[in-house]
Amino acid sequence: DLHANFKPLNESLVASYVKSQPRLGAILGGTSADWSVKEVGDGNLNFVYILEGPKGSFVLKQALPYVRCVGDSWPMTLERAFFETTVLREHRRLAPNHVPEVYHFDHPMALTVMEYLAPPHIILRKGLIAGTVYPLLAQHMAEYMASTLFHTSLLALSTLQQRKEVARFCGNIEMCRLTEQVIFTEPYMEASNNRWTSPHLDADAQALREDAIIKLEIAGLKSKFCEKTQALLHGDLHTGSIMVTQESTKCIDPEFGFYGPMGFDVGAFLGNLMLAYVSQDGHATSENDREGYQLWLLKTMGDTWQLFSERFVALWDKNWGAGDSYKIEVYNTKELQSLVQKTYLSELFQDSLGYAAAKMIRRIVGIAHVEDLESIPDLEKKVACERRALNFAKQLLKERSKYSDIRQVCNALQGSQ
Amino acid sequence: DLHANFKPLNESLVASYVKSQPRLGAILGGTSADWSVKEVGDGNLNFVYILEGPKGSFVLKQALPYVRCVGDSWPMTLERAFFETTVLREHRRLAPNHVPEVYHFDHPMALTVMEYLAPPHIILRKGLIAGTVYPLLAQHMAEYMASTLFHTSLLALSTLQQRKEVARFCGNIEMCRLTEQVIFTEPYMEASNNRWTSPHLDADAQALREDAIIKLEIAGLKSKFCEKTQALLHGDLHTGSIMVTQESTKCIDPEFGFYGPMGFDVGAFLGNLMLAYVSQDGHATSENDREGYQLWLLKTMGDTWQLFSERFVALWDKNWGAGDSYKIEVYNTKELQSLVQKTYLSELFQDSLGYAAAKMIRRIVGIAHVEDLESIPDLEKKVACERRALNFAKQLLKERSKYSDIRQVCNALQGSQ
Ligand SMILES: Nc1ncnc2c1ncn2[C@@H]1O[C@H](COP(=O)(O)OP(=O)(O)O)[C@@H](O)[C@H]1O
Ligand SMILES: Nc1ncnc2c1ncn2[C@@H]1O[C@H](COP(=O)(O)OP(=O)(O)O)[C@@H](O)[C@H]1O
Ligand SMILES: [Mg+2]
Ligand SMILES: [Mg+2]
Ligand SMILES: [Mg+2]
Ligand SMILES: [Mg+2]
Ligand SMILES: [Mg+2]
Repeated sequence: DLHANFKPLNESLVASYVKSQPRLGAILGGTSADWSVKEVGDGNLNFVYILEGPKGSFVLKQALPYVRCVGDSWPMTLERAFFETTVLREHRRLAPNHVPEVYHFDHPMALTVMEYLAPPHIILRKGLIAGTVYPLLAQHMAEYMASTLFHTSLLALSTLQQRKEVARFCGNIEMCRLTEQVIFTEPYMEASNNRWTSPHLDADAQALREDAIIKLEIAGLKSKFCEKTQALLHGDLHTGSIMVTQESTKCIDPEFGFYGPMGFDVGAFLGNLMLAYVSQDGHATSENDREGYQLWLLKTMGDTWQLFSERFVALWDKNWGAGDSYKIEVYNTKELQSLVQKTYLSELFQDSLGYAAAKMIRRIVGIAHVEDLESIPDLEKKVACERRALNFAKQLLKERSKYSDIRQVCNALQGSQ
Repeated sequence: DLHANFKPLNESLVASYVKSQPRLGAILGGTSADWSVKEVGDGNLNFVYILEGPKGSFVLKQALPYVRCVGDSWPMTLERAFFETTVLREHRRLAPNHVPEVYHFDHPMALTVMEYLAPPHIILRKGLIAGTVYPLLAQHMAEYMASTLFHTSLLALSTLQQRKEVARFCGNIEMCRLTEQVIFTEPYMEASNNRWTSPHLDADAQALREDAIIKLEIAGLKSKFCEKTQALLHGDLHTGSIMVTQESTKCIDPEFGFYGPMGFDVGAFLGNLMLAYVSQDGHATSENDREGYQLWLLKTMGDTWQLFSERFVALWDKNWGAGDSYKIEVYNTKELQSLVQKTYLSELFQDSLGYAAAKMIRRIVGIAHVEDLESIPDLEKKVACERRALNFAKQLLKERSKYSDIRQVCNALQGSQ
């Protein structure tokens, strides 16, 4: 058993643990008496401690063998810490500006020590709820996604390298199964985990469960999630897995990382921006109608896809023939290269819209909701925002093949009710 | 090194090897003096010995660390024997009538002992060249493919079981790379491995290398081959990997087995029937115009797909909810089940046609040709058959989305020139 010596820590045990690891103690400086330890995990799954000392600081994250917010009635593999660390390291290598550095990993303890993203870094979702503009967000996320997805795909890797990675990440299946369950299955059936604003959305949830076309579309997305080993994904790239300041954008928490369809990451981010967009009406006040902010959100969605696809194609152009999928000897003219790139990106766009929709739907009727909507004080407004999100997502899921351009999607969202 | 004790055998060493394995000797009966050993490998890669004794018989197949027909200038992993044996065992469990039984596997020696498919069993390709009708062929192949593909997919398996298998078969990447090279890459570029009937088909081969739409389509098929982990494939299901009698159909030689798109197996079989079809004109004589035989081949193609898809859907109907992809609680009405089945089968049909075309093309302009065409005595006739095969395959690859029914494909083949 890899985790035979696993021991769950608390604030005081964390300090003892760090004391036992001279390399870590040296980062903080001073002696353990000089260190502050604070648990800050607002996440659903794990414990996160901030450690600060006279010389430096770091974050220590530990997985427990169950879901934190549920308790030990919902067991969950400790191995997720290994996969999280592996993805952090790999994505950090590929997008160093947008991933915290890992300082230390203790496999038996399911424990990762990483760079502390100090204030003013906050979780993006909280910034979006507050109505804060992040002028570099689209550009940074485009860079992060293009770089990590391109370089872990067969556009950059040999099939030999890629299969080795695919095999390795098959080990994170328990986390994938959680995604399958809560994103692709339960929202479309009666399940005790599901919840929604009731009785207001009872009929909406029921209509969703009876919508054959939605279920057909979800089946295709679920199959791609389970079977398309296109790139090493973050796997949980919602706005709660991104920390930001005005100048900085960092992606954390890739414990759901695995080889899957690129659109799952891109769609997670876009879908959560869409949720932020519709929820603004619920946060509007007489001082701030949030309309300007909504326009910035729309622009950020549009810019994200636009910059992402440009960056992705630029990487491809710079690396023709690096990977095994499109050999330079076969795709040997500029026209041919453009043709296959356009086709590749257009399928990726379709996947991304599909997953964006799926991510929105599950946040309205599934187990885990988002603070953007949950924090709307007025119930009627909250219901209106939720229904709008659900209806837009359904329409997007069903009719996304009609969109060939992100601006059309932004316009549809803006015009939705 | 798993194969540190590997030793290549020859006919006399094979007898000594069997003597050292009492379980095997007991199958043959008598003593080694009573055994006959005959090498019969007509394949390109491996050595195959038939052993017969007073009591029984078997086949002993050994992989060498290189490609048999090329020599040690083209190294090839001994591990293929492990994957071949693993697939034989798994597919035998699922389709016992259509896969020989494995009696013994020696991993270090890359050596498999299996049921001898005695005469009148012959390699199907040879039977097709001779113009022999196999009345049960379509039904048997439909049964084999439906059963092996369905039961190794997420329609029958949990994602936990499937990922474990996917991870395991990631190990057969060297064989997949060979397929990538000779099927999806080299035919579409200038490569020293390529050959075609020259100078007759020089312009045809060049036109293929300059066809942007063909290259776009091949890219999609190659990506699915590399990235879509849909089922445990045979991986090399041409008519030279099938042994038949009037009553029996057995699939051998799955050393290219891996988790890939189902259509790759179905297309391999259909594409090789199509090659058999076009080559009949080259084998027609004044006594036998082969026209009736061509009609039987068309019917066999049609029946194969028809029976395969029926059998596949029947398995699905009988096993609703067995696998993790389509949960019964979500797909909870007959109409919904039919809808997702139709969509699933229609994508599989499209994939199958695409791979059928790719398999035909590579047999005309790539490294490995087929005896169906190679054995045509008249050069002009051979060229005509090859050009017809190439042109039909190109058209099929480009326009397969227009076909929704196998009969349309058969009609197009029949009407092709
Ligand atoms: N490297 C870090 N720097 C600063 N804060 C962090 C860091 N990692 C996590 N946090 C904080 O801890 C919270 C939970 O972390 P997260 O990795 O998302 O855990 P979980 O897997 O439980 O969701 C984050 O929302 C953030 O507030
Ligand atoms: N189980 C068997 N029973 C009878 N003949 C066999 C059997 N397996 C292989 N052969 C004969 O040996 C030939 C080569 O076997 P095959 O498995 O296709 O090897 P390769 O991998 O080299 O192509 C076949 O074409 C067939 O004639
Ligand atoms: Mg988190
Ligand atoms: Mg997490
Ligand atoms: Mg408004
Ligand atoms: Mg063979
Ligand atoms: Mg073989």
